[in-house]
Amino acid sequence: MTADSPPQDRGRGRRRRAAAERGGGVGPAQPPGQPLLPFPPLDLISRDELESIHSAALDVLKEIGVDFLHDEARAMLKSAGADVDPASRRVRFDPGLVEAHIGLALKAFTLHARNPARDLMIGGRHIAFGSVASAPNSYDRAGGRRPGNAHDYRNFIRLGQSFDSIHFWGGYPVEPTDIHPSVRHLDALFAMLTLSDKPIHAYSLGRERILDAIEMVRIARGLDDETLEREPSLFTVINSSSPLRLDTPMLEGMIQMARRNQVVVMTPFTLAGAMAPVTLAGALAQQHAEALAGLVMTEVARPGAPFVYGGFTSNVDMKSGAPAFGTPEYMKTAIVGGQLARRLGLPYRSSNANAANSLDAQAAYESVFSLWGAIMGGVNLLMHGAGWMEGGLQASFEKMALDADLLAMVAEFLKPMRVDESELALEAMREVGPGGHFFGAAHTQARYRTAFFSPMISDWRNYETWREAGSPTALDAAERIVVGRLRDFVAPELEPERLEALGAFVARRKAEGGAPTDF
Amino acid sequence: MTADSPPQDRGRGRRRRAAAERGGGVGPAQPPGQPLLPFPPLDLISRDELESIHSAALDVLKEIGVDFLHDEARAMLKSAGADVDPASRRVRFDPGLVEAHIGLALKAFTLHARNPARDLMIGGRHIAFGSVASAPNSYDRAGGRRPGNAHDYRNFIRLGQSFDSIHFWGGYPVEPTDIHPSVRHLDALFAMLTLSDKPIHAYSLGRERILDAIEMVRIARGLDDETLEREPSLFTVINSSSPLRLDTPMLEGMIQMARRNQVVVMTPFTLAGAMAPVTLAGALAQQHAEALAGLVMTEVARPGAPFVYGGFTSNVDMKSGAPAFGTPEYMKTAIVGGQLARRLGLPYRSSNANAANSLDAQAAYESVFSLWGAIMGGVNLLMHGAGWMEGGLQASFEKMALDADLLAMVAEFLKPMRVDESELALEAMREVGPGGHFFGAAHTQARYRTAFFSPMISDWRNYETWREAGSPTALDAAERIVVGRLRDFVAPELEPERLEALGAFVARRKAEGGAPTDF
Repeated sequence: MTADSPPQDRGRGRRRRAAAERGGGVGPAQPPGQPLLPFPPLDLISRDELESIHSAALDVLKEIGVDFLHDEARAMLKSAGADVDPASRRVRFDPGLVEAHIGLALKAFTLHARNPARDLMIGGRHIAFGSVASAPNSYDRAGGRRPGNAHDYRNFIRLGQSFDSIHFWGGYPVEPTDIHPSVRHLDALFAMLTLSDKPIHAYSLGRERILDAIEMVRIARGLDDETLEREPSLFTVINSSSPLRLDTPMLEGMIQMARRNQVVVMTPFTLAGAMAPVTLAGALAQQHAEALAGLVMTEVARPGAPFVYGGFTSNVDMKSGAPAFGTPEYMKTAIVGGQLARRLGLPYRSSNANAANSLDAQAAYESVFSLWGAIMGGVNLLMHGAGWMEGGLQASFEKMALDADLLAMVAEFLKPMRVDESELALEAMREVGPGGHFFGAAHTQARYRTAFFSPMISDWRNYETWREAGSPTALDAAERIVVGRLRDFVAPELEPERLEALGAFVARRKAEGGAPTDF
Repeated sequence: MTADSPPQDRGRGRRRRAAAERGGGVGPAQPPGQPLLPFPPLDLISRDELESIHSAALDVLKEIGVDFLHDEARAMLKSAGADVDPASRRVRFDPGLVEAHIGLALKAFTLHARNPARDLMIGGRHIAFGSVASAPNSYDRAGGRRPGNAHDYRNFIRLGQSFDSIHFWGGYPVEPTDIHPSVRHLDALFAMLTLSDKPIHAYSLGRERILDAIEMVRIARGLDDETLEREPSLFTVINSSSPLRLDTPMLEGMIQMARRNQVVVMTPFTLAGAMAPVTLAGALAQQHAEALAGLVMTEVARPGAPFVYGGFTSNVDMKSGAPAFGTPEYMKTAIVGGQLARRLGLPYRSSNANAANSLDAQAAYESVFSLWGAIMGGVNLLMHGAGWMEGGLQASFEKMALDADLLAMVAEFLKPMRVDESELALEAMREVGPGGHFFGAAHTQARYRTAFFSPMISDWRNYETWREAGSPTALDAAERIVVGRLRDFVAPELEPERLEALGAFVARRKAEGGAPTDF
């Protein structure tokens, strides 16, 4: 295993060490299930090219600026020294102001789960895989495609909880549209915190929802406010309204989360040719500008608040305008996005995305291309890891099972290869000799049960046996796994007093009318 | 773009420079269609671990030895200083003898095609993609699975010729079993050299066949013997009969090819747990030992003969013994295989493999995992790049089309990202401004037609439009492409005198009875 630092770390050691002394880079050992990148992330562009993207982003922030659709946010930025145009909502940032807020956020931190065994290290070489999130439609083969609903929502939570290769919830796997928006977050988070014990996300849809979510996760973890503030236990994804705009509910969530030291994941949605320049370098420059604007806002709200740099730059089909994912362009921007995140000393978010309409070869190759880009790019927080279809418009039960298998394979790939005397197996080669067979060798017999990863989906039977079994496809195998996992689901334990308190909180907030729906 | 040498190159600069001075590393510029790895290949194990695999292989060669089922080969090796046991066919190699033959072969060379525009650079950061080869069965959706035959064989050549992302033929895409074995090589190579103008492979099935192949490629290129000997124009894959055995027809081919300075690709078929130790390091040590034995044999036959280090180590399903491909274990061995090849200063061969029975998600994810391992591992010669199914037992027309698209996407991914003022697009961001849209921007309009790669297969229509179109899958798209390409096929030009000479040669050799079938 190569243990060298990536090249761009070397020249920046001092600032990085300083960040580590503030608490970055430390935390509990990774839980057994969390993969670790065993090699340096890939650099696709040179350091000079990286700096020119960073510089372009600083130019954008200084010359063009970003619209902040939130009065308090603009006031906070003005106090911090930003150039806030009183006649518009435009905020411009001097490069010095931006640079002063780089390095405040932690390089790595622990994202706590209600079950401590599910805590995740976010940053460094640590990798965490999340479920599909925010799909408006759900799909399974038996029921077809339908609008997201509470029943499917809960089944996605059950299914995702059952796979150890899915480490966290990046939002609602599917939108439970049959729950009224005023109380949807209460019911959805209650289900998530009771049917699952993995780290969770809350949507930045205004102040009340995010405060409710923070309170619910505090109750589920059985903490007081001070401990929750020391232990990030919730994250929110902030999408800019690209180009160069941050809207009111997102900014409200960002500010509230940062003030309580919870995790802000800033992800500009910069589709090259639509909401961003048609060139990849240009789209990345805009992504970087928007992420920097979010970083400054977060660190102004609370210096040191945990912040994750999100990259989601992809391209569109220039014939139709349809977004595309898992493309060669997507792979490149996923990798350069990681370079940009490391340039800022921040954890990096990417996604397992595809634009396929059915669970066919396209769904699989676009997903694995996305994973290739994300993993080689040094992703720390992989969103939409399992179940994402149709460019995010569909959460698929079968795709969740298939992706859970892909993620487990990626995790297995990332385990270092052992090279020692026992593994080099000279004794076995002596025993077997030229022309022999290893099945019966003592070295094989001692290891064969655990020697290799056993996938859930892959069908390796020979053609004739496979034909006799009815020619099942990967989709058939995935469907079978979904049915079995849902049938056998057992909810993880939750202390009765926490469960009761959580229920009481939801009941009270519902009685109060939930959260406003005029966002 | 990072242009650093891979770390293990640095300490070996002197020998590498010496090799380059002998002719390695030089050659014509890569043809426009050939991808170039824009970053250093990945190192998955440390230099010490790499050396321990190399040492283990040297121990195997010294202590256990390799069976050479060929009298002349053993005599040649004895003359070169190997320890040949007169009572058996076992050959043992002193480490000094092995090391003396490392560094003789070229680090990179040109593999010539009959069309010079199709010449390939093999080695360094150059990458070449080949077709599926050697499948006993062929498949298309309309006709189902059937034994390989001459009709399908010719159609595979036509289809593969039509895709620019397929650069060479790694053998017969499917075995034309309805042509008698005595003349099969004559008909098959005639079709390959007339329906295609890409570089070709010949099977090492004894002396006569390989000499016929060398003569046919000489005629097709219109060269004299001396020029052919200066310009490698044919390659052969030598598979050891693992563990640790080289059989008669393979050795015959290896010796004849090396003597004429044609290309030997040595690929041990070391399935961990079956023909090799159950541990990956052990299987790689055996792979390396067998490859080194082949290297010594080749370089004894002709010092400096072009030699490619092949890796094909994978694992088996320990429940059934079935071979598996595109697994996490396969990815690791593909990458470490590249490190071992570079350790010897040799070009590296890997494969695009999968074990799926149908063109479903499994076929796609196993293929892309294979490509991920091969590309990051620094593959130079990618065998079975397009059309391989069922662990090599099936050549699929639809899979060839789908893989041709995957290979084109990988090639696009490998193109360096441009980062300059025009690409950074500040002017476009100024024009559009916060909240705007880039579709209409001048910067977009000037570039949108060629901005992004357009895949053949991927369907990015929205769900409703896609449903109205009949819910086509990737398999449907691939089938449509196959039908269209075969319908529109036009054979590449071949000078009439060469065509005539080729036909006359085939006619003469057939009249002579072809080649013996007692191999």
